Amino acid sequence: MGGDYAPANVVAGACEAILESAGRFHLVLVGPEDTIRAAVRDYGRQPGTSAPAPDAYSIAHAPEVIDMHDLPTAALKTKRKSSIGVGLHLQKDGHVQAFVSAGNTGAVLSAATLILGRIHGIGRPTIGALIPTAKAPCLLVDAGANVDCRPQHLLEFAIMGSIYVSAVRDLKKPRVGLLSIGEEDTKGNEASLAALKLLRKSDLNFVGNVEGRDILSGDIDVVVCDGFAGNILLKFGESIPSFLKTKFKAFAELSITNKVVGLMVRNALRKVMKDLDYQEHGGVPLLGVNGVAIIGHGKSTPRAIKNMVFRAEEMVLKAVNTNIQESLASINE
Amino acid sequence: MGGDYAPANVVAGACEAILESAGRFHLVLVGPEDTIRAAVRDYGRQPGTSAPAPDAYSIAHAPEVIDMHDLPTAALKTKRKSSIGVGLHLQKDGHVQAFVSAGNTGAVLSAATLILGRIHGIGRPTIGALIPTAKAPCLLVDAGANVDCRPQHLLEFAIMGSIYVSAVRDLKKPRVGLLSIGEEDTKGNEASLAALKLLRKSDLNFVGNVEGRDILSGDIDVVVCDGFAGNILLKFGESIPSFLKTKFKAFAELSITNKVVGLMVRNALRKVMKDLDYQEHGGVPLLGVNGVAIIGHGKSTPRAIKNMVFRAEEMVLKAVNTNIQESLASINE
Repeated sequence: MGGDYAPANVVAGACEAILESAGRFHLVLVGPEDTIRAAVRDYGRQPGTSAPAPDAYSIAHAPEVIDMHDLPTAALKTKRKSSIGVGLHLQKDGHVQAFVSAGNTGAVLSAATLILGRIHGIGRPTIGALIPTAKAPCLLVDAGANVDCRPQHLLEFAIMGSIYVSAVRDLKKPRVGLLSIGEEDTKGNEASLAALKLLRKSDLNFVGNVEGRDILSGDIDVVVCDGFAGNILLKFGESIPSFLKTKFKAFAELSITNKVVGLMVRNALRKVMKDLDYQEHGGVPLLGVNGVAIIGHGKSTPRAIKNMVFRAEEMVLKAVNTNIQESLASINE
Repeated sequence: MGGDYAPANVVAGACEAILESAGRFHLVLVGPEDTIRAAVRDYGRQPGTSAPAPDAYSIAHAPEVIDMHDLPTAALKTKRKSSIGVGLHLQKDGHVQAFVSAGNTGAVLSAATLILGRIHGIGRPTIGALIPTAKAPCLLVDAGANVDCRPQHLLEFAIMGSIYVSAVRDLKKPRVGLLSIGEEDTKGNEASLAALKLLRKSDLNFVGNVEGRDILSGDIDVVVCDGFAGNILLKFGESIPSFLKTKFKAFAELSITNKVVGLMVRNALRKVMKDLDYQEHGGVPLLGVNGVAIIGHGKSTPRAIKNMVFRAEEMVLKAVNTNIQESLASINE
């Protein structure tokens, strides 16, 4: 029931994941039973689609919905039968191995931390975000979950981010950078300067401080920062496509020639915009909880939802959490 | 002598400012006398230009140069006859009313604070940066001078930024926003949450928290943040043009048709890139010191230098510093 286009987009994406995976996993759809059943039926009636076989999925009844306006922790208490609460309890009780949601990010983060618990040794679970670059997307971690961070938290983000990227991109040693205001080890704020020392001692492939200008080149795989700087950067990046549209539109209006060029450029622009569209990358991992939780954008398309399900599957198969736990144990020894 | 293309670009920009202003001000060029004299001669020999009349400018001899690799405070002590030191002392002693440099930002900031002193009531002088938007450029303040800030510092940045923008853009009440991770008053980090309360009580045209996505729309005139987040954001923004070039190039290489479209789009792109070029806006103010100092990009073009001189003139004529001082006095009463 999460997101602006629930249940239609979520159910459609789930159905596509079921059909495309051809039996690799069993999906449990969590929400008000009648609503979900109707949405599956609607999906099957669309031209060119068919509803998945009844034994490929099941429905877990969850009559309540936490929406974007609910305060996370309060909502978890008052709406005990929400799809977020019910879904995460299914994982806690071992009925499912992963949880995917396009719902209220704060609520999913709070609920997952509360219900699943933290991985031993992790002070703060974190949410990463994939930023499009000239090469592969770069994982920005933290993307807004933790605003004031201690150096140890930044180290944890780096470890978790590195293990996650290593798993989903099959990279042996992802390049990890610490976001700062200069490349030199003397540049940074109090927390980043202390974190730099911890990171230099870690066995990560740590490249040192990186600057805002180093992200889009795609030469860094994991960029570590507190959630305040991370969230500001992420949202600034998300606003670039509409800014460019405005700029090109203004250019096209300058003359008839420009208008013709503007029309010709539309396709090129659309393609570049698509690469810049953060939603295309479908879902970000919640790292540091005892379980797998993937959080998607509220405006997730069916395709994004499908990709989120596959990403969750990948996190389970590649045992991302076990790796995080082992890495932390070896550090704390 | 500041910047990557000194003295050529700096002298050329100064000469253009002298010629274009037609006697509105007298310029003092600070640097090794022979080098500067030769650069003025070189400028005058270029086709279509002529050296300015000898009485329109003078040269203050400063044989030493602080370069980008010098540590600011150390350099100020060891290189007492640098163009930065000599130039600022001319202002301190009342021989000039403003100082313009494309040199080492840290050195100019330290030297100006040390030599000119701070405006009474200002805890931390700040450097703002103009970010291109869909409308007029937005002043981001602080842009990297102060990484760890107390709430009071953020309030000071807001006041100084608002007065500066009001002067240079002839706006009665610039819209001031506090950079944060959500619009609600409950969103932010420790420092920003406390600063929000101070800003709500101020008589600025304060619109509340703004997010990373609110900058490029151009609906906010002054965006306040600490220098850590500000510098990261600024440098990320500066890297967008080359990222887009890479993306469009990749698009053009996909097919012959794309290549043709790519060629046609080149002009449109160049125009948009130019708007995105942070150097075009020429120089940022150092606010909070007892005097006028404009700092330019190390790669400043002659045009940028010329604009910096005009900006300095404007700050003097519009008594920006007097206004800052009066605003602070009224707050502290």
